[in-house]
Amino acid sequence: MSLVVVGSVAYDGLETPHGKVDRILGGSCTYIALAASFFTRVKIVAVVGDDFSRDDIALLLGRGIDLEGLERVPGKTFFWSGVYSADMNDRTTLVTELNVFADFNPKLPESYRSEPYLLLGNIQPALQRSVREQMSGLRYIGGDTMNYWIRDYHDELLATIRQWDFLLINDSEARMLAGAYNLRRAADKILAMGPKTLVIKRGEYGAILFHGQQHFIVPGFLLEDVFDPTGAGDCFAGGFMGYLAQQGVHPSVEEIDHQLLRRAVIYGSVMGSFCCENFGPDRFRTLTRADIDDRYREFKAFTDF
Amino acid sequence: MSLVVVGSVAYDGLETPHGKVDRILGGSCTYIALAASFFTRVKIVAVVGDDFSRDDIALLLGRGIDLEGLERVPGKTFFWSGVYSADMNDRTTLVTELNVFADFNPKLPESYRSEPYLLLGNIQPALQRSVREQMSGLRYIGGDTMNYWIRDYHDELLATIRQWDFLLINDSEARMLAGAYNLRRAADKILAMGPKTLVIKRGEYGAILFHGQQHFIVPGFLLEDVFDPTGAGDCFAGGFMGYLAQQGVHPSVEEIDHQLLRRAVIYGSVMGSFCCENFGPDRFRTLTRADIDDRYREFKAFTDF
Repeated sequence: MSLVVVGSVAYDGLETPHGKVDRILGGSCTYIALAASFFTRVKIVAVVGDDFSRDDIALLLGRGIDLEGLERVPGKTFFWSGVYSADMNDRTTLVTELNVFADFNPKLPESYRSEPYLLLGNIQPALQRSVREQMSGLRYIGGDTMNYWIRDYHDELLATIRQWDFLLINDSEARMLAGAYNLRRAADKILAMGPKTLVIKRGEYGAILFHGQQHFIVPGFLLEDVFDPTGAGDCFAGGFMGYLAQQGVHPSVEEIDHQLLRRAVIYGSVMGSFCCENFGPDRFRTLTRADIDDRYREFKAFTDF
Repeated sequence: MSLVVVGSVAYDGLETPHGKVDRILGGSCTYIALAASFFTRVKIVAVVGDDFSRDDIALLLGRGIDLEGLERVPGKTFFWSGVYSADMNDRTTLVTELNVFADFNPKLPESYRSEPYLLLGNIQPALQRSVREQMSGLRYIGGDTMNYWIRDYHDELLATIRQWDFLLINDSEARMLAGAYNLRRAADKILAMGPKTLVIKRGEYGAILFHGQQHFIVPGFLLEDVFDPTGAGDCFAGGFMGYLAQQGVHPSVEEIDHQLLRRAVIYGSVMGSFCCENFGPDRFRTLTRADIDDRYREFKAFTDF
């Protein structure tokens, strides 16, 4: 049983106070898949150009990720570059070249279609919906979105997330989607839109899980050095969903164990924190499952009272 | 055994998205004392003018607070007014009239001098030091400060906090004091300045405790309505120190129980959260110890995994 991940595979140019890289593997699908691969088998659906490198293919394959759904077409891979502020809480986009991603129309290989778990990275809501429709036997499905779709594709987005078990977005997006500043009120409104579970990511401040009448708040891990926060939110999603898939999350979302979701939020936080320790996805080249479980225990240690 | 609290007693004019009050009891000493009074006996040292109202005296006395050290002099009480932004994360000062507070020179009544616990609200560091020197038999002492003293009274401040068991400041102040952005690094530098315990307040995001080689992070309570955040940081301090005093914190700070400090941080968070539920200190008119213990259990419930 595998987790199917859909989203962008890209090259990023990054500049943080710790340094600069002109071109490094990036994209939501990449980060989600890498993070989730430490928990479960992952199959990706994405598109790249003919400039996509063998080394990056090797990195993904090395993590056991199924690339049958990674379409390679003539042209250049999606490219984004940005520069972070000194405190790394803001970033300015310098370049966005959609390239082959502009015509991305995800088609799932036959071997993907009966998988039980689906995580939809931040792409056009109609495309997210089309992926779902290509799958049968789904047990648990969720995804991410962003301000652009919330503002300009509102109805389409609502029709899409109505079918999801969980939605995973950041705090400003939650406020925008709900039209409410207070996060508790915003969460109530979003849970009324369909998803039974909402995870609000708060960057360095951690995350909040809303599920049924309960909520759970976890602070962010206090890193000695935040090297590069690119992809941390997607790695959170990958850790969250990867863990749930590994645990064989129950098909009836009504009955899903709240404590299981809390642990999934911790694994999400763990993967997001590791992501920041090196440029791009480089931390995942050396990370081990033992490192992950150590950090899970650290979360326990610094939050317990 | 009582807790001695020194700081400002003031009148505030407040405007938040929830409403406006022209003149309400405020000041660091007021908030700290009210919050701490739910845990321990409190004696305050402060100055007010001849405009200070009987009703406000009655509020403080009603909470069992000893006012022998509340000096009343001719003139007007310290007045501050400000307006909060829509998200309440920023506030703009409209008026600051120091009035009788400009010449505040705390003199402790004889009956205060042998008390074991001292909490120094945010005032001039030299005055904080003079209060400490008037006391004998102190078991546990700490306080707060602000950006103004960190920037313009740096050496004096360092000489003052060197003698403290704990320092309680917000995140931007910690960064300024340490000259380091990363909070883990900043904490290391501050702990090298003297205090064995550092609590960094993060507003709605909670607080971090640093003590020895350990740290503890608690997220903020998710209120349905943040009515008025004025005084929340001081109420945190009052709950933190009030609980420690109630527990009869050990004289040797080397040996202080780390778990006790964690619980004190939770009680601080609890008191800060209640403070935001009404204008000024109004929430404390009706709050009960049972409410406090209920919210303590809520903190446990929403952070446990």
